[in-house]
Amino acid sequence: MTGVPSPIGPDADGSVTTYAADWAWLPAGCTPDVRIAVAGGRVQAVSTSATPQLGDEHLVGLVLPGLANTHSHAFHRALRGRTHSVAGRESSFWTWREAMYEVAARLTPDTYLALARAVFGEMLLGGVTTVGEFHYLHHRPDGRRYDDPNAMGRALLEAAAAAGLRVTLLDACYLVGGFGPGGYARLEGTQRRFGDGDAAAWAARVDALSDTPSARIGAAIHSVRAVPAAQLPVVVEASRGRPLHVHLSEQPAENQQCLAATGLTPTGLLDRAGVLGPATTAVHATHLSEDDIARLGRSGTSISVCPTTERDLADGIGPGRALADAGSRLTLGSDQNAMIDLFEEARALEMDERLASGERTRFAPEELVAALTGAGQAALGWPDAGRIELGARADLVSVRLDSVRTAGTDPDQALLAATASDVETVVVDGRVVVRGGRHLGMDVAAELRSALAALRG
Amino acid sequence: MTGVPSPIGPDADGSVTTYAADWAWLPAGCTPDVRIAVAGGRVQAVSTSATPQLGDEHLVGLVLPGLANTHSHAFHRALRGRTHSVAGRESSFWTWREAMYEVAARLTPDTYLALARAVFGEMLLGGVTTVGEFHYLHHRPDGRRYDDPNAMGRALLEAAAAAGLRVTLLDACYLVGGFGPGGYARLEGTQRRFGDGDAAAWAARVDALSDTPSARIGAAIHSVRAVPAAQLPVVVEASRGRPLHVHLSEQPAENQQCLAATGLTPTGLLDRAGVLGPATTAVHATHLSEDDIARLGRSGTSISVCPTTERDLADGIGPGRALADAGSRLTLGSDQNAMIDLFEEARALEMDERLASGERTRFAPEELVAALTGAGQAALGWPDAGRIELGARADLVSVRLDSVRTAGTDPDQALLAATASDVETVVVDGRVVVRGGRHLGMDVAAELRSALAALRG
Repeated sequence: MTGVPSPIGPDADGSVTTYAADWAWLPAGCTPDVRIAVAGGRVQAVSTSATPQLGDEHLVGLVLPGLANTHSHAFHRALRGRTHSVAGRESSFWTWREAMYEVAARLTPDTYLALARAVFGEMLLGGVTTVGEFHYLHHRPDGRRYDDPNAMGRALLEAAAAAGLRVTLLDACYLVGGFGPGGYARLEGTQRRFGDGDAAAWAARVDALSDTPSARIGAAIHSVRAVPAAQLPVVVEASRGRPLHVHLSEQPAENQQCLAATGLTPTGLLDRAGVLGPATTAVHATHLSEDDIARLGRSGTSISVCPTTERDLADGIGPGRALADAGSRLTLGSDQNAMIDLFEEARALEMDERLASGERTRFAPEELVAALTGAGQAALGWPDAGRIELGARADLVSVRLDSVRTAGTDPDQALLAATASDVETVVVDGRVVVRGGRHLGMDVAAELRSALAALRG
Repeated sequence: MTGVPSPIGPDADGSVTTYAADWAWLPAGCTPDVRIAVAGGRVQAVSTSATPQLGDEHLVGLVLPGLANTHSHAFHRALRGRTHSVAGRESSFWTWREAMYEVAARLTPDTYLALARAVFGEMLLGGVTTVGEFHYLHHRPDGRRYDDPNAMGRALLEAAAAAGLRVTLLDACYLVGGFGPGGYARLEGTQRRFGDGDAAAWAARVDALSDTPSARIGAAIHSVRAVPAAQLPVVVEASRGRPLHVHLSEQPAENQQCLAATGLTPTGLLDRAGVLGPATTAVHATHLSEDDIARLGRSGTSISVCPTTERDLADGIGPGRALADAGSRLTLGSDQNAMIDLFEEARALEMDERLASGERTRFAPEELVAALTGAGQAALGWPDAGRIELGARADLVSVRLDSVRTAGTDPDQALLAATASDVETVVVDGRVVVRGGRHLGMDVAAELRSALAALRG
């Protein structure tokens, strides 16, 4: 697992394009009348109080840096609007998981490519320029390897390239089926698709994948339930220099089982194994002790908060503000993709904190923008993205300020009112992928419909 | 305060229009291939397993009955995206209220007409066919009456007629400025616009307003903070035969002050005064005791839950499920209009319950549809709306099932995925007001922009 991202975006051709933005979110804040010159996929110049020039491409409204979706399971999109109730039965986290395993059992590299391409297209329409795809559906339904053991991961990489966004493939080590009475349980049923046997075999498989200018190979520990404690250091060692993500304390049951089996909280267990640190992102981090929060913050571990999923799965409200105060950078993920709207994720982070605390303005607008952009891009291994400044990757997301939703808002608070439907233009590494709210290379809704229909057979 | 709504919608002209719906939400549930014949603003026939006929108007996706927005303060739309932080200061409920009072102080009948027309247009784009406008901005800034003492209320009625939806003007009695140390406090500053002196004077003023085929005059008690206990029976008596709404226990402080001053909870106080009952709707009902819940349910009082506002103002999560189980009908409101998307309100009702309870599927889809439609229409005094059945008001809202948001969803769970942007066609009392996602009579976004700009001066 080696490789350094190219300093030049994939469409570099030497020509300069200049964008004239009504407003742009620069490192100094929300700024009117900004010209942004782009060449070779990078920002070459930024000028403020600027008059648009002939030949500029006008970007209406507010231009944000590219949004990062730090936690996605693309195939969960197939469950959207299908698990609220099932055949009249009430639904729980566990009936949801059954439904998810049914979809997981049916996917092939071909159907997954088609579905993920459409889902990534949906993300682009909402301003996402990098997705972190948390990937554990590695093998055939019976657990045997495909001829190319990375066939499923390569389908995801190809889907991202075809859709036109950057991807960090967070290839997950998933070895066991949870804490059992006599030790860790074996993988059963659909779970057999997830397993590589041990962490060394997982690392060897992942080592066959390579970075490209628009894709990074990252690593993941599915959770403390899925990787035995003794195997954690192997994953850590194999993922050095890479983003490393891990599901953490999404449900109270995980905490109870981990404490009973190891005497440590999941955070404590990860800390002991050397998993925490600035290259690591903990996903959810919902049910934490004060000591957990301090460990995550002190180690500089980033957090991927996934509020619409955490609502949907009845997980609860995590301690986002406390984690940020302790030193963790917050980022946002659409996770199960029951909804793909990063603005709603940011709003939900703020609103759920309000519900839990009884106080308003738990996060300043610039903190929410950082979570949506720079902090998220960094957590996915793209530290040169997520800011509009000289030398940065030229990701630009223009958000209408004149729609029925955003009319009348202060530009620097518009993200509290905007939805994905307000995204007008999306530029990824200097290349315009979405214009006028439409993906220039695909009919996203049609591809979603056909990919989902094919999956149902 | 007398008058009976006309049995015929405003556009009755005798001709029959037949709509062919891919799916329609009928009283029996979500049903494919439905033809709906409409004449005189009423549903004249409903057939299922029907083949579309030449001349039918095709309604794509899922056709819902008209949505009811049971709690709106139209002028709060001016605060959207402007109170998250103010000049870098943190915001609380109280800084929010300051900002709200500043807008309230500036409105005239003319600027309010323009703003409300645009806001009601925004509601129509999201499928709202009846709005309950909770109105307390009655008088001049210094408290003197306008030449027509109902000038502001008439502006709201005119705005609804111009936009093309039905309105229930919930004219609010607002007499005092809260529980004070030596009795109720006097109205001060902007609050002087709200006051009529006493409940008899309020009733006399409201009595000059009349129902029309598309407008009902309802009544409201602003809250137990704003109407002295001794005046409550006067309001109840004057509003017989009318919808009566009341803000209830939105913030814990109201409960504490009411208990200290009267020895009763706000619910207990309203119950003693005869306010509760099937014609009454309690708005928010967030902080309730078990006894409060039992009283509201037993009396058949409806509830207007306003989840996006309750999040935004950090009110907390109310006991929606418990209220429904106790016998109250739940309805939904956009309240401060920081967002106008009734689907998000319904989703938030369900999702916030999940966060509070740790359980999924707190409400069946048909319960959420009832809250959005029939229960809400009834709470606004339109019991013949909100259902697609013979003789009912012909309100039809078609929601795309093929958008990037809704593709692949089960039609009967699509409202868990849809947003206001997915509304394609809106028929109000047999008249098509929105088609192709556009209001046929106004450019809503442009009207919002100009009305909001005029208000800032």
